[in-house]
Amino acid sequence: MPAEITEVPQGTVTSPQGFLAGATYAGIRTYSEDKVDFGMLMSEKSSMAAGMFTTNLIRSPSVVVTEEHIANGTAQVIVINSGIANACVGEQGYKDAKECTAMAAEHLGIPQEDVLFCSTGLIGVELPMGLLKGAIPKVNLAPDGGHPLARAILTTDLRPKEYAVSFPHDGRTVTIGGITKGSGMIHPNMATTLTFLTTDAAVEPAFFKEVLRETVDSTLNMVSVDGDMSTNDSVIILANGAAGGEVISWDSDGAETYQRALMQVCAHLSREIARDGEGATKVITVIVEGARTLVDARKAAKAVATSSLVKTAVTGNDPNWGRILASVGASGAEVVEEKIALYINDVCIMEDGRPVPFFKDAVVAIMREQDVSFRISLGLGDASAQAWGCDLTNEYVTINSAYTT
Amino acid sequence: MPAEITEVPQGTVTSPQGFLAGATYAGIRTYSEDKVDFGMLMSEKSSMAAGMFTTNLIRSPSVVVTEEHIANGTAQVIVINSGIANACVGEQGYKDAKECTAMAAEHLGIPQEDVLFCSTGLIGVELPMGLLKGAIPKVNLAPDGGHPLARAILTTDLRPKEYAVSFPHDGRTVTIGGITKGSGMIHPNMATTLTFLTTDAAVEPAFFKEVLRETVDSTLNMVSVDGDMSTNDSVIILANGAAGGEVISWDSDGAETYQRALMQVCAHLSREIARDGEGATKVITVIVEGARTLVDARKAAKAVATSSLVKTAVTGNDPNWGRILASVGASGAEVVEEKIALYINDVCIMEDGRPVPFFKDAVVAIMREQDVSFRISLGLGDASAQAWGCDLTNEYVTINSAYTT
Repeated sequence: MPAEITEVPQGTVTSPQGFLAGATYAGIRTYSEDKVDFGMLMSEKSSMAAGMFTTNLIRSPSVVVTEEHIANGTAQVIVINSGIANACVGEQGYKDAKECTAMAAEHLGIPQEDVLFCSTGLIGVELPMGLLKGAIPKVNLAPDGGHPLARAILTTDLRPKEYAVSFPHDGRTVTIGGITKGSGMIHPNMATTLTFLTTDAAVEPAFFKEVLRETVDSTLNMVSVDGDMSTNDSVIILANGAAGGEVISWDSDGAETYQRALMQVCAHLSREIARDGEGATKVITVIVEGARTLVDARKAAKAVATSSLVKTAVTGNDPNWGRILASVGASGAEVVEEKIALYINDVCIMEDGRPVPFFKDAVVAIMREQDVSFRISLGLGDASAQAWGCDLTNEYVTINSAYTT
Repeated sequence: MPAEITEVPQGTVTSPQGFLAGATYAGIRTYSEDKVDFGMLMSEKSSMAAGMFTTNLIRSPSVVVTEEHIANGTAQVIVINSGIANACVGEQGYKDAKECTAMAAEHLGIPQEDVLFCSTGLIGVELPMGLLKGAIPKVNLAPDGGHPLARAILTTDLRPKEYAVSFPHDGRTVTIGGITKGSGMIHPNMATTLTFLTTDAAVEPAFFKEVLRETVDSTLNMVSVDGDMSTNDSVIILANGAAGGEVISWDSDGAETYQRALMQVCAHLSREIARDGEGATKVITVIVEGARTLVDARKAAKAVATSSLVKTAVTGNDPNWGRILASVGASGAEVVEEKIALYINDVCIMEDGRPVPFFKDAVVAIMREQDVSFRISLGLGDASAQAWGCDLTNEYVTINSAYTT
C-alpha cells in the first residue's frame, strides 16, 4: 500500500526539520509597511543541493554564480533579493553576485561555495551593494522564517505562495516544503521563476537530481502566464537528511512516495503561480490525454494554456472551443481532427472533432468559476500532460504598460 | 541599373491587366450599410497559380479544396467568403467547399478545377449554402472591383489593405497587386491569413513558386498580432501574363526586379496587417541584424515582435529594453550578451550588452509615434530579418473577451 501523503497546515519552506529562514527590508524596493525584499534560507548543516535554471541565453550573473556553487551538489544557504534582477549589467553583475555570497558566508561562518544567490526584479540596474551588506546581519534566521521569506521574494505577485507535505518513511516523518514567486515573464523552459524547495529526507544524489528534473518538467515547466521567459528563472532544492531513516534511492520503498510528494508540492505551487499571474482572475488547467507521446501531450497542453485568444475567451466566460482547437492544431503535436474530444469543466463540448449541442448558458455559468479546466482527448495514444495558465485581462495590459524601465 | 519600381495610386488586386473582381452582401455577417461578405477575383483567362497554406493540423476544408485545385499550377477564379471559416464542421465542410467551386464554375462557364475557395470567420459553423448560391450571380466582376473585394474579406479588421506596384520589363509595364485581411489569430507559419496577389507578368512556373515562398517567408510569415495561428491562413498568387513580354525566370533580366516588387507588395501588406491588428494603436517593426544565420535572425525578430511584455511596453511608450533582451535571449537564436546593441527608432539604447545613458523622456516621446522600430544588432554575422507586430492594448482584451462563439 502506498504511503499516505498529508498536507502540512501552513506549510512552507521551513516546515522540514533543520531549516531556518528569515527576511528583512533592505531598501531595494519602494518602502511600504511590512515590505521585505531580502532574505535567506539556511539548512542547519550542509545539504545536498540540485537546481534547474533558465535556458534564456541572456541570464543574470546571480544564476551563473549559483550554478558554479551548486555544481558540487552541496549548499547550505540561499541568499535572495527581490526588486532588482542583476541582469544585463555587464561584468559588475558577476562581481556583485560573488560578493553577496562572500558577505553571507563570512557572516554565517560557512564556506562561500555553500552559498547560492538568487535575484528577481528589474533588468539593467546594478545591485545596491551597500544596502545588501547592511541587510545580511538584519535577517533573523528562525524555524518559522519561511513565511516572511515567501513574502520577500515577491515582485508584482499579490500573494505569497508556500506549501508543504509530509509522509511516513522508515518509521520517521519526512517533509517536503517549498515557496515560489511568479506573476509576469512566466513561460519556463527547463525551470521557472524562483522556486525554493527543501526536504529533510535523506536521498541518494542521482535519484535526488533526476526526480527534481522529472517533476519540474511536469509542473513548473508547464505554467505560462504570458509566454515570456525570464533571465533569472531558478528552481533549487536542498535536502539535509535531518529526518533520518533509510536513504531514499530508486531501489528503496520510499522512492515512489517521495516522487508523489514532490510532485504534489510543485503542482500546488505551479497552480498558485498561474492563479497569481499578473492581472489574472482565473486559473486555467489544460489536461491533454490520449496523445501519442508525452512530448505531444505537453506541447498541446502548453499551447492552449498560452494562447492569447483562449485566455481572453476565458476572461469573457466564452466557451470558444474553435480557439482551443486552433491552438491544439498549431501546437506541433500530432492530432487528427476527427478524433478530438473536448470537455470544459467536465461538460462535453465536442466529440469526434465536431461540436456537440450544448446549452451555452450553462457552460458560460461554469466558466464564471475561478477554476476553468479544458480537457482535450486526442484519441491517439496513452500519453497525458497538464498545463496551467491564467486569463488575459485588461489588468495585465495596465500593469505591464505602466511598469517602469 | 535596376529597373525602377513605382507605387500604383490606389493600387489593388485588380491593378494588373486582365483581372476582374467584385463583392456583394450574401447575408453571412450581420447587416450594416456598405457591408459586403462575399466576393470573387477572376483572371480573364486561365492563370498560373501558386499558394502557401496554414500549417495548422486543424484546417478548413476550404483550404483542402483550394490545395487540390491549385495542385496543377493553374486557376482562374478565387471565391471568398468572410464571416464563417468553414472549419471544424466535419465532412459537410468539404462538401460545401467543393459545391461552392462547382456553383461558381457553372455560373462563369469555366472548369471547376480552375476555381479556388477561401473562407474566414467563425470556426465551427456550417456555411449557409443557399445564401452563397444566391450571392454568386450578384457579384459584379469589374476591372476596378479590387476595392470592394478588399472590404469583403475583412472580419474584425478596421481598414481594407490593398497595394500595387509597377515596373518596366521588356518594353512593357508589369504590375503586381494584392489585398489582405488580418486582425486576430495572426501568427503565421508558412502562410498568413488571407492574402490574394495578382500579376500580369509572364513568369516561368518554378521561378514563380520559389519567389512566392521566399517572399512570404520574409514578409507575411514575419507578422504576429497575437501568436495564434489560424485554421484558414492562405496566400494565393495568380499570374496571367497579360502584360506580355519575355517570360521572367531566374535567368532573365527581370528576375531581380520582379522579386523586389513582390517583396515590396508583401512587406507593405504585412505592415498593414500589424497596423490593423485587433486593438492595435501602433506598428512595431523589429529589425535584427548581425545574426549568424537567417534562421537565427528570423527567430529573434519574431520573438521580440510576439512578446506580450514588449507589446505592452510599447502600449505604455516605455523603452523597457530589458524585456527586449529577455525575448531575444529566449528566442532560440544564438546570442552573446556582450555583443548586443539596441536602437529604438535609431536612438542607441544599449551597446556591448549594456545600457548606454539615454534621455528617457526623449525616447518616451519617440515611442508615442505610430511606428516604433527596434533594431537589434547581434554582432555575430551578416544575416538580417524583419518582423512586424503591434502593441497589446486593453482594446485587444475587450474585443477578444466579447467576441462570441
